[in-house]
Amino acid sequence: MFEARLTNGSILKKLLEALKDLVTDANIDCSEEGLSIQAMDSSHVSLCAVALRSDGFDHFRCDRNISLGFNSQNLGKILKCADNTDMITLKAEDSADNLTLMFESKNQDRISDFELKLMDIDADHLGIPDTEYKTTIRMPSNEFKRIITDLQVLGDTCTIAVTKEGVRFSVTGDLGTGNVLVRSTNGVDKEEEEAVVIDMEEPVELTFALRYLNFFTKATNLGPSVVISMSPDVPVVVEYPIEQIGHIKYYLAPKIDDAEE
Amino acid sequence: MFEARLTNGSILKKLLEALKDLVTDANIDCSEEGLSIQAMDSSHVSLCAVALRSDGFDHFRCDRNISLGFNSQNLGKILKCADNTDMITLKAEDSADNLTLMFESKNQDRISDFELKLMDIDADHLGIPDTEYKTTIRMPSNEFKRIITDLQVLGDTCTIAVTKEGVRFSVTGDLGTGNVLVRSTNGVDKEEEEAVVIDMEEPVELTFALRYLNFFTKATNLGPSVVISMSPDVPVVVEYPIEQIGHIKYYLAPKIDDAEE
Amino acid sequence: MFEARLTNGSILKKLLEALKDLVTDANIDCSEEGLSIQAMDSSHVSLCAVALRSDGFDHFRCDRNISLGFNSQNLGKILKCADNTDMITLKAEDSADNLTLMFESKNQDRISDFELKLMDIDADHLGIPDTEYKTTIRMPSNEFKRIITDLQVLGDTCTIAVTKEGVRFSVTGDLGTGNVLVRSTNGVDKEEEEAVVIDMEEPVELTFALRYLNFFTKATNLGPSVVISMSPDVPVVVEYPIEQIGHIKYYLAPKIDDAEE
Repeated sequence: MFEARLTNGSILKKLLEALKDLVTDANIDCSEEGLSIQAMDSSHVSLCAVALRSDGFDHFRCDRNISLGFNSQNLGKILKCADNTDMITLKAEDSADNLTLMFESKNQDRISDFELKLMDIDADHLGIPDTEYKTTIRMPSNEFKRIITDLQVLGDTCTIAVTKEGVRFSVTGDLGTGNVLVRSTNGVDKEEEEAVVIDMEEPVELTFALRYLNFFTKATNLGPSVVISMSPDVPVVVEYPIEQIGHIKYYLAPKIDDAEE
Repeated sequence: MFEARLTNGSILKKLLEALKDLVTDANIDCSEEGLSIQAMDSSHVSLCAVALRSDGFDHFRCDRNISLGFNSQNLGKILKCADNTDMITLKAEDSADNLTLMFESKNQDRISDFELKLMDIDADHLGIPDTEYKTTIRMPSNEFKRIITDLQVLGDTCTIAVTKEGVRFSVTGDLGTGNVLVRSTNGVDKEEEEAVVIDMEEPVELTFALRYLNFFTKATNLGPSVVISMSPDVPVVVEYPIEQIGHIKYYLAPKIDDAEE
Repeated sequence: MFEARLTNGSILKKLLEALKDLVTDANIDCSEEGLSIQAMDSSHVSLCAVALRSDGFDHFRCDRNISLGFNSQNLGKILKCADNTDMITLKAEDSADNLTLMFESKNQDRISDFELKLMDIDADHLGIPDTEYKTTIRMPSNEFKRIITDLQVLGDTCTIAVTKEGVRFSVTGDLGTGNVLVRSTNGVDKEEEEAVVIDMEEPVELTFALRYLNFFTKATNLGPSVVISMSPDVPVVVEYPIEQIGHIKYYLAPKIDDAEE
């Protein structure tokens, strides 16, 4: 028996929005510790990992570990039927073919329940090594989204270069070149969540496919900040913390330049 | 000579929005009592009936009964040119080939007139029997629209079951099942137009094509409430009252289950 | 060396919106007096002329006259990356292959620079004769846009007739006819920019292709008013003044009726 309730059900709605264009099928792995999802995108280029801690739920019970295989478009369609202010409860029997979703409006005058057919998905939970990154940037998530959206008009490859002064996003394409420099916020003249904070051991410069960075920004609504961690030659981590319950992290390997420039 | 003026012209705009996707051509039947429109949808599955009483108009004159045959897409296009705050006047000669529409802005600084070519439409005015229904639900029109929109993601057939506790809308489809229960509002803790009121002689459960229910919800802007009347084995009536002037009613026959479940 | 800075960078964004669907390629002609653009639309039916005076910029330097040939879709894409509140600086070397655009956010925490590849465009600057018009209408730009948009549902040719009482826009098409009369504002009971002011030496009636008038209304965001100048048998001028810096003017020849009606 698995049962989990979130008063702020919109977190689950936003989470599926953040997953469904990138990931086709995935497992929700349920255990005493909470829920986790780990999935490659359909082209097997990027990896997406979600963790929601059990103590972040208003009610959480998981008698034994189970994996609930879902199609993310279908789960997304059902979650769209929940209002942003609805309380959402997830339920499944131990050997379940269905996931039950219950949506309750604030004043209990509308109660919906949906049964989603589950699927058997063969997926190994990859062990992601706990890397120390050379540089970490925290910046407003909507600012990051905006830059990625803007730069896509110019080309499909983006270089992210971090120095103490700031982060530079650069694109070169047929119609010209573009650079956006986001400066590190000095002092405390800004709300914490609007700040750009750079924690840097050494400067790093990596190049990525904009198409995937753009998929990652679908998670923007999950929180005010995004944390980007980079080291030379290893995948970037783009993390969206989800307040008091967990996070969604995206991993993307940098492009390797054949030619020295 | 026919002439009718509505200070609140937006009613006519909304009415055409409620008709134009369902009905291709129809007659406006004008008499001393007012205007009425009755038309089947293009697949002859559902029936739509509009009544606007002459006393609801700011000015109304109809010397002799006439039928004005219109194409609803074309009339809709012309009414889109009226501002929501415009006063609208309809005019036609006794043997008219054209319907004249005049739109006057509040301060009279813009006056538009349009001539719509009329058509000869062969249509018998059906006598709709004045049925006593076993159950009648009044609920907020936007809540009804929302449920119909939501459930369409799951399937194309919806069962509406009414009991004293509330109304249950249910759909079963490839990806799973969904139920939305709307509870009857108890007491007077709600604005009248936000209330869900169930007037029930006996429980009724009928099944309908969601596609048509969805067409009906195009009338949502006409008023805050929708009234759904059902009896076993007869068409449901989905009525949107239009304040102080009339209503639009949609009739849809229930689906008949071949197999007993 | 050319350099020009506008604190209100949104003017340039709106200007490209007003150009890019009508004009494919054009030159920005830079001189001490300011910037000007003159271009035919791609079907060579209408002419568009932009003038921005140097004294309207916050900083302006142009050492010698140069022409910067641009593709308007591409320049539009880059300007979309500027925020509405950004300060925009344009820069080019004397024999430039690139136009540099710099966008600075209000608090300097985001600085973007883009290089747009320039093109060689063969274009003679046409001398537009300084005509005296028989009639000039000033009216709210959004009102003009609305009328043009509305009338397009009825047909593709619009007659504009000016008398002392007002301006009448008329269209005839398959589904019927439409007339919109905008009355001249009497007295001072209206904000200046909401007024309709007709300056008329003699009544004028001309007929135009709605398709082009519709293109012109893309400039609506540039200011609250539009000024329409007409004389018999010469092109209409549709001018959108741009506050304290210049204007965009569109020229369109009237249609000639073969048949007398």
